Amino acid sequence: MKMFIHEIKENENVDSSFLVKEKTSGLAKTGNAFLKLKLGDRSGEIEGRIWTSADALAQSFERDDFVRVRGKAVSFQERLQINIAHIERMGEEEIDASDFFRKTERDVEEMLKSLVDIAEQVKTPCLNRLLHLFWEDGAFVDRFKTAPASKSVHHSYLGGLLEHTLSLAQLVSRNAGHYQGLNQDLLLAGSILHDLGKIDELSYRRSIDYSDEGRLLGHIILGLERIEDKIRQIPDFPRDLAMVVKHLILSHHGQDIWGSPKKPMTLEAVMLHYLDDLDAKINGIQQFLKDHLPEGAKWSAYHRIFEQSFYAPTSWEPLELPDKIAKTELEGTE
Amino acid sequence: MKMFIHEIKENENVDSSFLVKEKTSGLAKTGNAFLKLKLGDRSGEIEGRIWTSADALAQSFERDDFVRVRGKAVSFQERLQINIAHIERMGEEEIDASDFFRKTERDVEEMLKSLVDIAEQVKTPCLNRLLHLFWEDGAFVDRFKTAPASKSVHHSYLGGLLEHTLSLAQLVSRNAGHYQGLNQDLLLAGSILHDLGKIDELSYRRSIDYSDEGRLLGHIILGLERIEDKIRQIPDFPRDLAMVVKHLILSHHGQDIWGSPKKPMTLEAVMLHYLDDLDAKINGIQQFLKDHLPEGAKWSAYHRIFEQSFYAPTSWEPLELPDKIAKTELEGTE
Amino acid sequence: MKMFIHEIKENENVDSSFLVKEKTSGLAKTGNAFLKLKLGDRSGEIEGRIWTSADALAQSFERDDFVRVRGKAVSFQERLQINIAHIERMGEEEIDASDFFRKTERDVEEMLKSLVDIAEQVKTPCLNRLLHLFWEDGAFVDRFKTAPASKSVHHSYLGGLLEHTLSLAQLVSRNAGHYQGLNQDLLLAGSILHDLGKIDELSYRRSIDYSDEGRLLGHIILGLERIEDKIRQIPDFPRDLAMVVKHLILSHHGQDIWGSPKKPMTLEAVMLHYLDDLDAKINGIQQFLKDHLPEGAKWSAYHRIFEQSFYAPTSWEPLELPDKIAKTELEGTE
Amino acid sequence: MKMFIHEIKENENVDSSFLVKEKTSGLAKTGNAFLKLKLGDRSGEIEGRIWTSADALAQSFERDDFVRVRGKAVSFQERLQINIAHIERMGEEEIDASDFFRKTERDVEEMLKSLVDIAEQVKTPCLNRLLHLFWEDGAFVDRFKTAPASKSVHHSYLGGLLEHTLSLAQLVSRNAGHYQGLNQDLLLAGSILHDLGKIDELSYRRSIDYSDEGRLLGHIILGLERIEDKIRQIPDFPRDLAMVVKHLILSHHGQDIWGSPKKPMTLEAVMLHYLDDLDAKINGIQQFLKDHLPEGAKWSAYHRIFEQSFYAPTSWEPLELPDKIAKTELEGTE
Amino acid sequence: MKMFIHEIKENENVDSSFLVKEKTSGLAKTGNAFLKLKLGDRSGEIEGRIWTSADALAQSFERDDFVRVRGKAVSFQERLQINIAHIERMGEEEIDASDFFRKTERDVEEMLKSLVDIAEQVKTPCLNRLLHLFWEDGAFVDRFKTAPASKSVHHSYLGGLLEHTLSLAQLVSRNAGHYQGLNQDLLLAGSILHDLGKIDELSYRRSIDYSDEGRLLGHIILGLERIEDKIRQIPDFPRDLAMVVKHLILSHHGQDIWGSPKKPMTLEAVMLHYLDDLDAKINGIQQFLKDHLPEGAKWSAYHRIFEQSFYAPTSWEPLELPDKIAKTELEGTE
Amino acid sequence: MKMFIHEIKENENVDSSFLVKEKTSGLAKTGNAFLKLKLGDRSGEIEGRIWTSADALAQSFERDDFVRVRGKAVSFQERLQINIAHIERMGEEEIDASDFFRKTERDVEEMLKSLVDIAEQVKTPCLNRLLHLFWEDGAFVDRFKTAPASKSVHHSYLGGLLEHTLSLAQLVSRNAGHYQGLNQDLLLAGSILHDLGKIDELSYRRSIDYSDEGRLLGHIILGLERIEDKIRQIPDFPRDLAMVVKHLILSHHGQDIWGSPKKPMTLEAVMLHYLDDLDAKINGIQQFLKDHLPEGAKWSAYHRIFEQSFYAPTSWEPLELPDKIAKTELEGTE
Repeated sequence: MKMFIHEIKENENVDSSFLVKEKTSGLAKTGNAFLKLKLGDRSGEIEGRIWTSADALAQSFERDDFVRVRGKAVSFQERLQINIAHIERMGEEEIDASDFFRKTERDVEEMLKSLVDIAEQVKTPCLNRLLHLFWEDGAFVDRFKTAPASKSVHHSYLGGLLEHTLSLAQLVSRNAGHYQGLNQDLLLAGSILHDLGKIDELSYRRSIDYSDEGRLLGHIILGLERIEDKIRQIPDFPRDLAMVVKHLILSHHGQDIWGSPKKPMTLEAVMLHYLDDLDAKINGIQQFLKDHLPEGAKWSAYHRIFEQSFYAPTSWEPLELPDKIAKTELEGTE
Repeated sequence: MKMFIHEIKENENVDSSFLVKEKTSGLAKTGNAFLKLKLGDRSGEIEGRIWTSADALAQSFERDDFVRVRGKAVSFQERLQINIAHIERMGEEEIDASDFFRKTERDVEEMLKSLVDIAEQVKTPCLNRLLHLFWEDGAFVDRFKTAPASKSVHHSYLGGLLEHTLSLAQLVSRNAGHYQGLNQDLLLAGSILHDLGKIDELSYRRSIDYSDEGRLLGHIILGLERIEDKIRQIPDFPRDLAMVVKHLILSHHGQDIWGSPKKPMTLEAVMLHYLDDLDAKINGIQQFLKDHLPEGAKWSAYHRIFEQSFYAPTSWEPLELPDKIAKTELEGTE
Repeated sequence: MKMFIHEIKENENVDSSFLVKEKTSGLAKTGNAFLKLKLGDRSGEIEGRIWTSADALAQSFERDDFVRVRGKAVSFQERLQINIAHIERMGEEEIDASDFFRKTERDVEEMLKSLVDIAEQVKTPCLNRLLHLFWEDGAFVDRFKTAPASKSVHHSYLGGLLEHTLSLAQLVSRNAGHYQGLNQDLLLAGSILHDLGKIDELSYRRSIDYSDEGRLLGHIILGLERIEDKIRQIPDFPRDLAMVVKHLILSHHGQDIWGSPKKPMTLEAVMLHYLDDLDAKINGIQQFLKDHLPEGAKWSAYHRIFEQSFYAPTSWEPLELPDKIAKTELEGTE
Repeated sequence: MKMFIHEIKENENVDSSFLVKEKTSGLAKTGNAFLKLKLGDRSGEIEGRIWTSADALAQSFERDDFVRVRGKAVSFQERLQINIAHIERMGEEEIDASDFFRKTERDVEEMLKSLVDIAEQVKTPCLNRLLHLFWEDGAFVDRFKTAPASKSVHHSYLGGLLEHTLSLAQLVSRNAGHYQGLNQDLLLAGSILHDLGKIDELSYRRSIDYSDEGRLLGHIILGLERIEDKIRQIPDFPRDLAMVVKHLILSHHGQDIWGSPKKPMTLEAVMLHYLDDLDAKINGIQQFLKDHLPEGAKWSAYHRIFEQSFYAPTSWEPLELPDKIAKTELEGTE
Repeated sequence: MKMFIHEIKENENVDSSFLVKEKTSGLAKTGNAFLKLKLGDRSGEIEGRIWTSADALAQSFERDDFVRVRGKAVSFQERLQINIAHIERMGEEEIDASDFFRKTERDVEEMLKSLVDIAEQVKTPCLNRLLHLFWEDGAFVDRFKTAPASKSVHHSYLGGLLEHTLSLAQLVSRNAGHYQGLNQDLLLAGSILHDLGKIDELSYRRSIDYSDEGRLLGHIILGLERIEDKIRQIPDFPRDLAMVVKHLILSHHGQDIWGSPKKPMTLEAVMLHYLDDLDAKINGIQQFLKDHLPEGAKWSAYHRIFEQSFYAPTSWEPLELPDKIAKTELEGTE
Repeated sequence: MKMFIHEIKENENVDSSFLVKEKTSGLAKTGNAFLKLKLGDRSGEIEGRIWTSADALAQSFERDDFVRVRGKAVSFQERLQINIAHIERMGEEEIDASDFFRKTERDVEEMLKSLVDIAEQVKTPCLNRLLHLFWEDGAFVDRFKTAPASKSVHHSYLGGLLEHTLSLAQLVSRNAGHYQGLNQDLLLAGSILHDLGKIDELSYRRSIDYSDEGRLLGHIILGLERIEDKIRQIPDFPRDLAMVVKHLILSHHGQDIWGSPKKPMTLEAVMLHYLDDLDAKINGIQQFLKDHLPEGAKWSAYHRIFEQSFYAPTSWEPLELPDKIAKTELEGTE
């Protein structure tokens, strides 16, 4: 069974699987070579050192490999590290990815099914066709089920993109009829397509980071390319419709300073922007609170991107009034 | 029957009721005094001139009075004006306010009832009590049913504040459960209370403008005062609860540059801000399109506050695919 | 011969060709219908009125038609207008477009040839091929030779896009070697391709304005689509190269607030941005000075987009020192 | 021969010259005084400790002195330091400044000659005279050859100001004729004079930092004073010409937020600003890449002032197409 | 006696002196030439027309001349204009400047004396000397007594610069001792010198506008040049002192976006900035209220530079409590 | 007698009182529990460790208690810590608060008396009464005498709020008459009331930080509530007067980006804002210089909130001219 890094205690024996995040060699005072590793799993990172047969062992695995490690946890300069007695490479099939990477807590296949179901609400033929072309694209679906929705701000875990897309599509489905005159099919299709460029913007095989394309072009452009590519496969897809679909993607960040080259100019684009922003922000805060709201505290740590702290008292009992107030109230209203 | 200003044509006789918006006197080339009026109704404004017995007639009505006017429409320097033969003051009971002021198109009493019903979903005793105290305050309810939600940006017509509040409360009621861990009672109460300071911020007896208090203090402060006043009437209202309710009001504009002295710091405040902003923006655009989207045009005029135009082609037929595409599609998906 | 609007004087006879920019009808005090036209040519606009046989004449031409007009210039409310005695539609082949639209003062074919010559400096095969595909695309070339580079800020006249592109390509060609380590082929190709989306962003058949696609998507996206389309025709075009080419297009405005979704991240993108901005700014000022530097004045009118006036004394004689100073100087340096 | 700090290895003997950057004394656990030094050279910094005869040795040198050090490199808390056995002050004549300070890689005298040659292109007598007065001012020339162009952003090494000035003057000389109507003499003189206040703004005898005057007044003001001082020596220097020269200096940062009290208002000032900015930015990035682009990496570290990373793959082979593509292309174009 | 423009009434005879602000000629429908003048005095502007002997009369005066005009006020297109029967040039000695230009309401010589007296509080020899050099400079003093402090924002009338400088010097003199450790001599000298560049930045012989130097260099730079010029006349003026004096001038606008190339970095500079800003703002508002607070209104017009309206109810009686409250209060406190 | 933390030296015995700022337990390599404390006093913080009887001693005191500590100062990883031999809880009555917290250096009671005296200059009955109500509110006065004026920027020490309020009231009292037409009573009352919400915004029993209310509502809202509460106790307090008083509080930060929901719209509000800002800024700089201007240095450290350093040479001798200059000067002026 996997022993997680945050469970390791001083002077204990360690026998578990880890991901090799860094691998460097050094010279000990004795003049012998040693290996310095940064090992990681879902729960954190720990240093590991190989003092014996370092040169030989160094050949047997590389950075980004999974390894089985046996050794002992010792304290060095107030931090734990593992003196490694034995190390060997593991195949990816031997490990459980969720031990190593943050993943959505929801079932991916169920989420995908729910999203496809919502997509079926889209009745405009060519829009419905457009969505189908994506579901039929196996390579796309594989990445779409795995990708996170951002590097760190919100839904930044495997499956996060799907989770965010589904949540937004649900919000859109539930509220699209609240205002008259909006094209609900357009809005739904937009919600499903809006962030799909993130499957290319980010790289997420070992850790979540931006790809070269992601940094140089960004997910809005990368998403437009994928959509353009599908539209080209639909004969006589109306140019005007393609234009407003692309405008939804292009403008969903709302403003140039948030990365949208165009502000939302249609009612659908305005609504999509607000609901997308709402979903990203709420998830971003909730994800942040999980890690940065100390046990029992009312205030989170400072969130550097949102430039503020959040107030989240864990219990809301004060909201309950004592009995006598409740009575006064009931009398008062009658 | 009321003849509206936008229906008046050159050289026609006029016999209708108007609101006196300005009243000044001048000297004609003949040396005689004349009266120059700005007359208005719901559809626009027109100038009126009284050349005969101006001094006498001037005594019989004041600015902001309703008057019955008989005369003839003539063109002067390319604009229409009315040469007034007869004018007399009307009592407010003789006129139909909706002929003179923009009003919500929805039924005010029904909207209020819907809002009160939503308010009953709030089960936390002291929050429920707080809302009741407002419904029991007749003077408040009268103003709340009449007030607009802004001078010009959104819901800027009589009854607009109620319409906006109801729309937001519906959005909140429908979506509050979408995310876990939010206090739905707090969110609902916040949506109902968030803008009520606008009943004092604006003056709206004859035309919509800011009151002195509105300009100097603003609706956020004025609303907080009214809420504080009611809370004081509820014994043992928990101080912490009062604090988070007030924070919702204080932060609902989202950022200091939009007039909120505090950014939203609770999940409820974040969600309320986004949904409020969404509702104001969508209504603001729809209201603008009514007046500033020329018949048959796809692009609205430039909106100076939003700093953009909006794209709103009146028909969406291009969205429909020709038959053969639809067929291809159906075949394609099977 | 064409009589230009700015040459028309009060009480003179007019017999010339114009473009119909607006056409509305009205009722004269006599009860007869009349036609009110806005007529334009390269030099300005003037109102025209048809008082006789208005209904019949109204059938014979439409807005955006060219017409031959005979009549007399009269002054009405301190502005000139033409009382039109005769009007008839002209075929486009009868008029000289440059009488009606601002055009580049340079020879379009020569500019195109110069640009194609510069393009031949690009030796990287697939980049060279990419440029060729554009030159081989007749519909593209036609629009590219006609399009302006902007609605009003710089090179905002027919042929302006080509003029700006050539000027930038010359700057790039001349300076690309000034710094070591830049890929000159990439830089040259980028300079030629950077603004080509403007052929779709703007509409410029009768007057220069934005197209629907231009407003909703913008020339950066529209240009990327055209480039993507050509790249798809080149087998095995390296993905990395496509990526940096697209990055050049995407980032050439330099910053998000200037409409670039990505900041320049390569040395080539940085250089392209500065030289593009320089060329646009200098032309923009020179174009503005032509119209807004009163004869003999040293200061231009206020430029609302640049938010400043420009200092451009027409003569620079003060730069010449009087003889005696020059002598002193010569002595002084020896 | 100089052993550089970055070459020192654990347990090796050290015998080399260094600059004393800090010098403090402490008490060892034994109760004896010891000296703690921060030693530096061009390649970095290292700590040195003197445990024996610390008091006596402390008298023999001061901070900012060059010293010859003999001792042994040891590791303390994972960082190297030198246990110093012997230390003695060196005269400045004994050291080679380039061992200690970053310097331009180009020949200073050659650069100066090139700049003076360009200056001779300026034919307007009093501008030519103004430039001569600077070349004739030995104290000025000495500082001008040594000064860096900034503390850290671009050309931030000895000789950097001259290098930047020459590069800009070359750009100006090469491009001044690209647009009609610009005064090339003014532009050339401006490029040569634009940053000369930096000889006073920065202090750069031991390390590059701001002088008091530099912080309180800035190089724009300090440069204007020096120019004003020379102009006063030229009888009848035209006041208008002085005004536009000073405007060039004053506005060359382009905007108030970049430190220019006036925006460029002449065509010359606009062009100078863009080319100056281009040269500073390109050099700034190239200088940054040297230190912050890890071997083999495609992405630089994050540049805190530019607020971005840069993409600079070291090889551009992907730009080369495989043979078959190249052939296809050749065939395609014929 | 002068009849002011705002006193002229329709159909009255006019016989008064005016300043010729514009002078253009036109052709009447009769074919005869006529002259169209814009005439001004302190109270406003009015159009004048000369229908008879226009050509001859046109020779006798120029724009910017003072003229005596006889004629009749008539109404044309709802605005008054003067049909001029006779016009002749006046010498400047015949007119009273205060009839034509806005001037300070305070006695200029008295203000100057007060300022010189305050300057005498400066005891540091070279600062005292510096101030004396200005008082001894007759040409400077003449302009300093006449110049306005701005074109339109504050103290924008003849003598305004002196009035503002004196007001600021008084504020500084009164408050300099409020905080410990500030150099009061420096602060006083700074307050007296801070804006003196405005005598060159503005032109104010006929109307207040910017000079060429003012636009291209600005009063901060122009003031520094004048101060530098005087400092050069004081042998051994300490360089450090010159530096902090110049820093006061340079930084007194507080921030780059308000035109200061350097932020205040000394306590004296910080204090000077705040008091200067206070004095400019209060005067600016009071000056604005004089013209833009309608009689009896509580709210001023919208101030476009300050981007707001001001609340200034003319009476403050509501501040007085009715007697009984006052009594309650007195009892309450005892 | 208190031994302060900054006086403790390595290997000395320690016997002094401290505040327990943190208290955590750990396991030593021996397997025994130990206690790790963070101890503080006015002069700084130091770590303390209890190795013996840690469990037993841990019961005898808590975080935020004052304790008497006996032990020995040792160096661990280059920092001092105390090996604690004995520790015991102290009563608050045994300690001198000023040993532990930064306090104003001025006498609190004297400052309060001065402020109450200034308040007596307010003659408008209800304003005078309003101020009295605060002085009569013992709980308020207690907090008002203790509260700091901010967490860290200015007057951030016990008694700082009173010190700042008095300083501002003195400035207002001294300058209120400088401009005509300002209501001095209103201005004075505003200066006294402007920041009183800070007694609730901050918590300052053990260290200065924001309270929950402070973060969620801010001192402007909290102050308005307290003022509203007192006004309610004054019968017939004029609504208009309450409005302008509240506007003063609401707008005193000057702009939305500085936390004021409304800009100052009355002359009194404008003046109050400037003088408040001046007082906060000067104190903020002086307080910063005390800690961050190294002995003998001319430049302070970088102030992260003000985003600059300050120039404050400790001696100003350079201001004195040598004798001969002084003489020249005297002669020169006569």
